[in-house]
Amino acid sequence: MSVIYDRVALIGLGLIAGSMAHAMREGGLAGEIVGFARSHETRDTAREIGLCDRICDSAAEAVKGADLVVLAVPVGAMGDVAAEIAPHLKPGATVTDVGSVKQSVIDAVGPHIPDGVHFIPGHPLAGTEHSGPRSGFATLFRNRWWLLTPLPDSDPQAVARLADLVRAMGAKTDSMEASHHDLVLAVTSHAPHLIAYTMVGVADHLRRVTDEEVIQYSAAGFRDFTRIAASDPTMWRDVFLHNKEATLDILGRFTEELFMLQRAIRMGDGQQLFDYFTRTRAIRRGIIEAGQDTNAPDFGRSAEATRDR
Amino acid sequence: MSVIYDRVALIGLGLIAGSMAHAMREGGLAGEIVGFARSHETRDTAREIGLCDRICDSAAEAVKGADLVVLAVPVGAMGDVAAEIAPHLKPGATVTDVGSVKQSVIDAVGPHIPDGVHFIPGHPLAGTEHSGPRSGFATLFRNRWWLLTPLPDSDPQAVARLADLVRAMGAKTDSMEASHHDLVLAVTSHAPHLIAYTMVGVADHLRRVTDEEVIQYSAAGFRDFTRIAASDPTMWRDVFLHNKEATLDILGRFTEELFMLQRAIRMGDGQQLFDYFTRTRAIRRGIIEAGQDTNAPDFGRSAEATRDR
Repeated sequence: MSVIYDRVALIGLGLIAGSMAHAMREGGLAGEIVGFARSHETRDTAREIGLCDRICDSAAEAVKGADLVVLAVPVGAMGDVAAEIAPHLKPGATVTDVGSVKQSVIDAVGPHIPDGVHFIPGHPLAGTEHSGPRSGFATLFRNRWWLLTPLPDSDPQAVARLADLVRAMGAKTDSMEASHHDLVLAVTSHAPHLIAYTMVGVADHLRRVTDEEVIQYSAAGFRDFTRIAASDPTMWRDVFLHNKEATLDILGRFTEELFMLQRAIRMGDGQQLFDYFTRTRAIRRGIIEAGQDTNAPDFGRSAEATRDR
Repeated sequence: MSVIYDRVALIGLGLIAGSMAHAMREGGLAGEIVGFARSHETRDTAREIGLCDRICDSAAEAVKGADLVVLAVPVGAMGDVAAEIAPHLKPGATVTDVGSVKQSVIDAVGPHIPDGVHFIPGHPLAGTEHSGPRSGFATLFRNRWWLLTPLPDSDPQAVARLADLVRAMGAKTDSMEASHHDLVLAVTSHAPHLIAYTMVGVADHLRRVTDEEVIQYSAAGFRDFTRIAASDPTMWRDVFLHNKEATLDILGRFTEELFMLQRAIRMGDGQQLFDYFTRTRAIRRGIIEAGQDTNAPDFGRSAEATRDR
């Protein structure tokens, strides 16, 4: 592989930026990787593990001379960071972000971007429940989607170059409108996360009643929920606050549907339950066929790992 | 290992019974393993893959002379099976079941069990989203809990012998009252499953609006839900119908809690969201410490598998 950007600045050094650093280094995709994180502790850790070629003590310093600037901070922090770096951006540079919500990031960041700098919002559909500078790994994006939501006036060549980088890190790219992205993600990611958080919270209350049993006997189902509900609290707080409309819309539909199934249970309508569960099983097959997961048996742990144990 | 039961009859040949057959064979725990399934197709498959030493064409025939009879059919079918096999049970034999609900199974099966036969209900907290005679594997129960809910008059020696078998298949055992089991499982497994089914159903409706994108871009969160929601529809229909009270209780608490978080989103109360998500993250740590899951990063797929890809 060859260098796609001479200098890349990563603002925020969590799971996504860290994985990008590993992936770009492994592929030789960046001449120099510069990093910045707001917390002193994170910068120290990043230096200690050599996450980037250089860690700066300010965002302004980090973006100086960078050909690509990646905003990898919680969605609610994007605007402030953009305001801080704006005067220091190199003409012709590209600024992208990796936020899970796109319209509010565009609203917050867009106005700060100077003429002659390309702003191309993006969102890698990849993650684990871990966070922080030590959590990244080079293959996080492999075979995952990395959605770009270019603005109407985005420069096609700049978009193509960013897409090249994304593909070189192993991801698949697609472009869509920001508002559409936010609706799709509300149903595939944001609402499910809130639901998982909620269910784990309910168990927490009950745990006081039934001692430690809920944790002790956390079966398949709940165990998967706790994994989701262990995701970074700051990131997810911001996602919900910044994709408010779409998330509340989906949660409204969810509640309607849940009430219907609760009623079927209460009324003993086994046929309705059976039909519903048969339909959801078919959706799972669609996802496997779309290559977004494997058919290997797994319930929060891989069968292979189980067999080896 | 040595033989614990001379002859074991498996009634129903799905994931659990199949895994028991593999595990008992691997450990040399049963002199002979006899199987029966209601569907002709399942019996043919079981014969073809040599799942048991012998496959019978009726449940009555299968249990003849068996020292242990395992009822591994959906919860709603337990009573009928018990009625059918009762006259053919060997005096001194043990009958157990593997249903996810215990009180309703006791109510349905108990009255059919003749004097001199031990009925010891049980529930292995293990499974995958696959089902059928080909889905079992020997290590399914390894390090998983297998809860027993003996009746007040259960013979201690018979219970100890069943517990020996369960441990020899790699599981950990514990005993509790049936009604308490049903409450604990409602929160750790039954309610989470219904919620996952519901969320996938919502996406199904929305899919019609957004074409195939919901499937295409199924991110972490939703992908895990689809895995749960791909579980056997008959089994789960019966679980909800037979653990109605506890499941509806937990779902009621869940809805209250979800409304509170929805309101926090609507009102922009980031602190409440952050505090809630921080608390649920701590619960995850409790589960890892309790040995019910690993800390390996995973979002519906194992990180190792990802790295190797």
